[in-house]
Amino acid sequence: MVRIGIVGGTGYTGVELLRLLAQHPEAELLCITSRKEAGMPVADMFPSLRGRVDLAFSDPQAAPLGACEVVFFATPNGIAMEQTRALLDAGVRVIDLAADFRIRDVAVWEQWYGMRHACPALVQEAVYGLPEVNREAIRGARLVANPGCYPTAVQLGFLPLIEAGVVDVGMLIADAKSGVSGAGRKAEVHTLFAEASDNFKAYGVAGHRHLPEICQGLARAAGAPVGLTFVPHLTPMIRGIHATLYARLTREVDLQSLFATRYQNEPFVDVLPAGSHPETRSVRSANTCRLAVHRPQGGDTVVVLSVIDNLVKGASGQAVHNMNLMFGLPERTGLDHLPLMP
Amino acid sequence: MVRIGIVGGTGYTGVELLRLLAQHPEAELLCITSRKEAGMPVADMFPSLRGRVDLAFSDPQAAPLGACEVVFFATPNGIAMEQTRALLDAGVRVIDLAADFRIRDVAVWEQWYGMRHACPALVQEAVYGLPEVNREAIRGARLVANPGCYPTAVQLGFLPLIEAGVVDVGMLIADAKSGVSGAGRKAEVHTLFAEASDNFKAYGVAGHRHLPEICQGLARAAGAPVGLTFVPHLTPMIRGIHATLYARLTREVDLQSLFATRYQNEPFVDVLPAGSHPETRSVRSANTCRLAVHRPQGGDTVVVLSVIDNLVKGASGQAVHNMNLMFGLPERTGLDHLPLMP
Amino acid sequence: MVRIGIVGGTGYTGVELLRLLAQHPEAELLCITSRKEAGMPVADMFPSLRGRVDLAFSDPQAAPLGACEVVFFATPNGIAMEQTRALLDAGVRVIDLAADFRIRDVAVWEQWYGMRHACPALVQEAVYGLPEVNREAIRGARLVANPGCYPTAVQLGFLPLIEAGVVDVGMLIADAKSGVSGAGRKAEVHTLFAEASDNFKAYGVAGHRHLPEICQGLARAAGAPVGLTFVPHLTPMIRGIHATLYARLTREVDLQSLFATRYQNEPFVDVLPAGSHPETRSVRSANTCRLAVHRPQGGDTVVVLSVIDNLVKGASGQAVHNMNLMFGLPERTGLDHLPLMP
Amino acid sequence: MVRIGIVGGTGYTGVELLRLLAQHPEAELLCITSRKEAGMPVADMFPSLRGRVDLAFSDPQAAPLGACEVVFFATPNGIAMEQTRALLDAGVRVIDLAADFRIRDVAVWEQWYGMRHACPALVQEAVYGLPEVNREAIRGARLVANPGCYPTAVQLGFLPLIEAGVVDVGMLIADAKSGVSGAGRKAEVHTLFAEASDNFKAYGVAGHRHLPEICQGLARAAGAPVGLTFVPHLTPMIRGIHATLYARLTREVDLQSLFATRYQNEPFVDVLPAGSHPETRSVRSANTCRLAVHRPQGGDTVVVLSVIDNLVKGASGQAVHNMNLMFGLPERTGLDHLPLMP
Repeated sequence: MVRIGIVGGTGYTGVELLRLLAQHPEAELLCITSRKEAGMPVADMFPSLRGRVDLAFSDPQAAPLGACEVVFFATPNGIAMEQTRALLDAGVRVIDLAADFRIRDVAVWEQWYGMRHACPALVQEAVYGLPEVNREAIRGARLVANPGCYPTAVQLGFLPLIEAGVVDVGMLIADAKSGVSGAGRKAEVHTLFAEASDNFKAYGVAGHRHLPEICQGLARAAGAPVGLTFVPHLTPMIRGIHATLYARLTREVDLQSLFATRYQNEPFVDVLPAGSHPETRSVRSANTCRLAVHRPQGGDTVVVLSVIDNLVKGASGQAVHNMNLMFGLPERTGLDHLPLMP
Repeated sequence: MVRIGIVGGTGYTGVELLRLLAQHPEAELLCITSRKEAGMPVADMFPSLRGRVDLAFSDPQAAPLGACEVVFFATPNGIAMEQTRALLDAGVRVIDLAADFRIRDVAVWEQWYGMRHACPALVQEAVYGLPEVNREAIRGARLVANPGCYPTAVQLGFLPLIEAGVVDVGMLIADAKSGVSGAGRKAEVHTLFAEASDNFKAYGVAGHRHLPEICQGLARAAGAPVGLTFVPHLTPMIRGIHATLYARLTREVDLQSLFATRYQNEPFVDVLPAGSHPETRSVRSANTCRLAVHRPQGGDTVVVLSVIDNLVKGASGQAVHNMNLMFGLPERTGLDHLPLMP
Repeated sequence: MVRIGIVGGTGYTGVELLRLLAQHPEAELLCITSRKEAGMPVADMFPSLRGRVDLAFSDPQAAPLGACEVVFFATPNGIAMEQTRALLDAGVRVIDLAADFRIRDVAVWEQWYGMRHACPALVQEAVYGLPEVNREAIRGARLVANPGCYPTAVQLGFLPLIEAGVVDVGMLIADAKSGVSGAGRKAEVHTLFAEASDNFKAYGVAGHRHLPEICQGLARAAGAPVGLTFVPHLTPMIRGIHATLYARLTREVDLQSLFATRYQNEPFVDVLPAGSHPETRSVRSANTCRLAVHRPQGGDTVVVLSVIDNLVKGASGQAVHNMNLMFGLPERTGLDHLPLMP
Repeated sequence: MVRIGIVGGTGYTGVELLRLLAQHPEAELLCITSRKEAGMPVADMFPSLRGRVDLAFSDPQAAPLGACEVVFFATPNGIAMEQTRALLDAGVRVIDLAADFRIRDVAVWEQWYGMRHACPALVQEAVYGLPEVNREAIRGARLVANPGCYPTAVQLGFLPLIEAGVVDVGMLIADAKSGVSGAGRKAEVHTLFAEASDNFKAYGVAGHRHLPEICQGLARAAGAPVGLTFVPHLTPMIRGIHATLYARLTREVDLQSLFATRYQNEPFVDVLPAGSHPETRSVRSANTCRLAVHRPQGGDTVVVLSVIDNLVKGASGQAVHNMNLMFGLPERTGLDHLPLMP
């Protein structure tokens, strides 16, 4: 059993971690912290956990994080970087679901996140937790930077093309659509039901924080900088990301076979048959990315459709996958639930 | 391992059975039939099952139903009654998720369902599969009539009051609200997204088929006929039933304690603390009924709030619970998934 | 042209007033105030009004409210009672969309609203703005207390029964369901899309502020106190209230004809044919209440179904109706838009 | 008053025409046909029209279409082409909301629509009813081919760029998202609430019928063939299209000013300030297209965001606009309703 702590458990990635870990046969949840809700039983805030999670939120100061083998940070950006050093020094491994350790170029991080980084040295040590790219490094990591939701969907869709060198990496387009839970469980007007329902909009066209993260990952695969236009949109559903990716083919290739081969051994990536259109609900509640690749009218534009559940493969499920790798567990452990349909 | 067949697997109760049974450690799914889709791999119709359910739909004639230990009917009303006799004779047990065997008074059944009953004799043998009432009978049953979704939510909410004899059973009111999946996976105009979304309506006020089923169950508990006004409504959500129940108290009682005691040993009924308002999403995807009981302003009207997932506790989950009972398995086997929230 | 001011225009009743008044042929909107947003063009906050509403929000102190003929308060409870006296003294008529003047018994008001009333004297002068009951008094009123959304739907449904003396007023039940816009445009967690979507719940079963308002109106019609159980629910749609009302008949009556006669001259109440089930979307965006009356199985329980758009007939549309009456305009002026379907 | 007939009034474009024409001060609706529903009062099918539309559906054979000045076809593809010749010969003008007359190259039309065209000659006469391009021709037209919903949103977004010759027309991308009403009011499984809600998917990536229509319009503006990748998506909302358009800039230009100038005199196109993100709800129920133009990170990719209500500017509203032009009415007549928000 892996002894686990969660810092910051009142948001959606926190409660999703709780759902997954409470059903994980090798997980022993020691504590979950919340400054604001300290003392409140977790199941009072989230009745879906009644009878299954008996913990109360602990005060961050009082929580026995040092007794854990791994601590998940399900906190806003900027918290994990303050506390990770001490945990690592105490021999506790860390998985950060926020963005603190995702961008290797600290100056770029500071520009996009608008704060000074508290421990740049750890940024270099951190392993970017996309198992389909960094599986081996994750196994040995002390500190994993769990990828963002958009970056997961977009990178998994583009990687086969870029790794194979078959597209113009100077002109990539990622048109991504997210369910509203991606905005978190914060009280804000624009994500109210009466604002976000029966409505569709783009946002952050001038620049979204996930852009440098995606570019970093794609550039690494390309071995060169990439040119990416990334437009996120808000769509009236709770969970799910659908990324529609466009690139210009620079040479002939069997696209279907390229994708199938790239992911043939990946437990959480499913390449659909040619001609398919994956639906976000086909991965609802599951740690799966489903992909389809198209070449409309046989032209030189390739279109990739990539869907994930933003809270699972795009956040907490991927974090548990990383934990499984770090602790030598079979990768599917605790992540085998079937999607909820309808 | 229990060898299982499903007749009629293309509707919502069918695919939900598949989701539950594919994750059930003691279930071995032998076949699933569909006249219309015979030959089509199940996962082509329901991509959420890709990689986990390898069966194709079989033609009903060709399916090895006789080799099963239990067959679930997830068919429209009127199918199970034609085929059950032969299965029972072959030593196969049957769980009917439709209404064919729910109403003991065949004349009443024929009136509400508008057809002649094909095997009235079996109606008498059938056990009504509400485990909270008929647990022992279910264990020994060859044929279980799985309750309707509304009847499950309404009966579980009223039973403690009626069994204790503390309300006027002549004037019960059940105001029930169902998600749209309750209408099934049939192509119909009134359940189209553009019709049912952002909309709320009552239906069947003059009389709904679940009325006699509920009355039968409540009358049995009361030992006398009951007077029930039942108004179902369609609410724009996929899953979930919320029943709001009203009754007039006829004597003083500690309502909270009455409910807590009645369900203290029930694995799938959760009585919330006094003052609670259960949400349908708190049981989404789970085989749980959550209840709260109120007495507004200390008057003599008791209000019970009862929520279930109509496809799980209201259909396929309850059917699996019944199977567990029939085959001597621990009741929670394969039914321990946590609700999906948000 | 009626010269109009709006106090507090950033909520849903405010923007709905703007939508209606901007299209009202006799309305001249002089100012709209918001302490927080003073200076911001209204159409920057609400792009739906671009090109049609050129005003900016004014600071409440600086706004020329004294130059108006009527001022609408679309504010939280407790604001109008502070400012109404001065406006009336300046010869400005007032329509309050909040609750400050709805309850004649000031002690009751103070108990339910948890604050001290600032001008009890005006409570006695205020006319309750339900035109179907108080049409003549509204015409001459200086101060109109615009009804709440639930109270509008529930009273219009019960009134024919109570006025005719055909039901037991000691045991009325109102099971009401509201769209999420009824909770206002406040940043709160429980009305976020990811919380309120695909979910249904009751709230305030122990007591909701609209209860004394409804009871007051029904008691006035009955000439005696009434016993009402009122349970509001939140349903995942933007607009709309569906009230399902239950009462026990105490004598025989032609219900359909009773309702048709009661409302035959009402421009904004539509009694549907016998057997109908009104949908909330059939009144979406319109100032209409549609009603249907049922007597299930010919028993002694009468069921009334009442639907309104909570922001129109339940708030801003009814306020404009009141304005039309107060200024001698044809009642339908500016309120003739057809519902939006689908 | 213009005397009007509607052929095929039971779908969403039909009922939307009814909503708009019933409120149009110069419209006199003579008849509306439906083979299947002949005899049924329109308001029985669409209660939102109760008290305002007194017509019943007529049998197509019996309807006095010859007495009309204009007939709208709100029918499936392939109906208008059978009946238009006779109407024109009788002096009746025709506006077809389906696709029969949209594509000038009849061979292309026959390929995409999978049927033989019944009157190719009229295709050449028909005027494509996009007023922002063909205003003068529409005024004199006998036969108007009302544009498709996607083509309206996409063309209005691309036209300023293409007309000004500032983008590479060989590599245009249109990523479009539509509400579910775009699929029509047909009973189909994939548009059921329980299928389309809380879900997002692309469809028709291999080729959608609106592709040749868009290409034809853009090619005409470019004076040369264009290369367009068009990917439509289904998003869980009732109304609205959001097109996100991508093109490569080939020379420097002030994009904001380019768009503002192009549409400065257009009554139904609204160019938002730089940096804006139009929401579909900002045009809900209105005949408006709102546009914003972006150049992310100052690169050479231009991103245009274009939103319309698919049933209004994308169908029935644009049809009424065309009628206004054809009959010399002020363009805004009957189309001045404000969007419904929230």
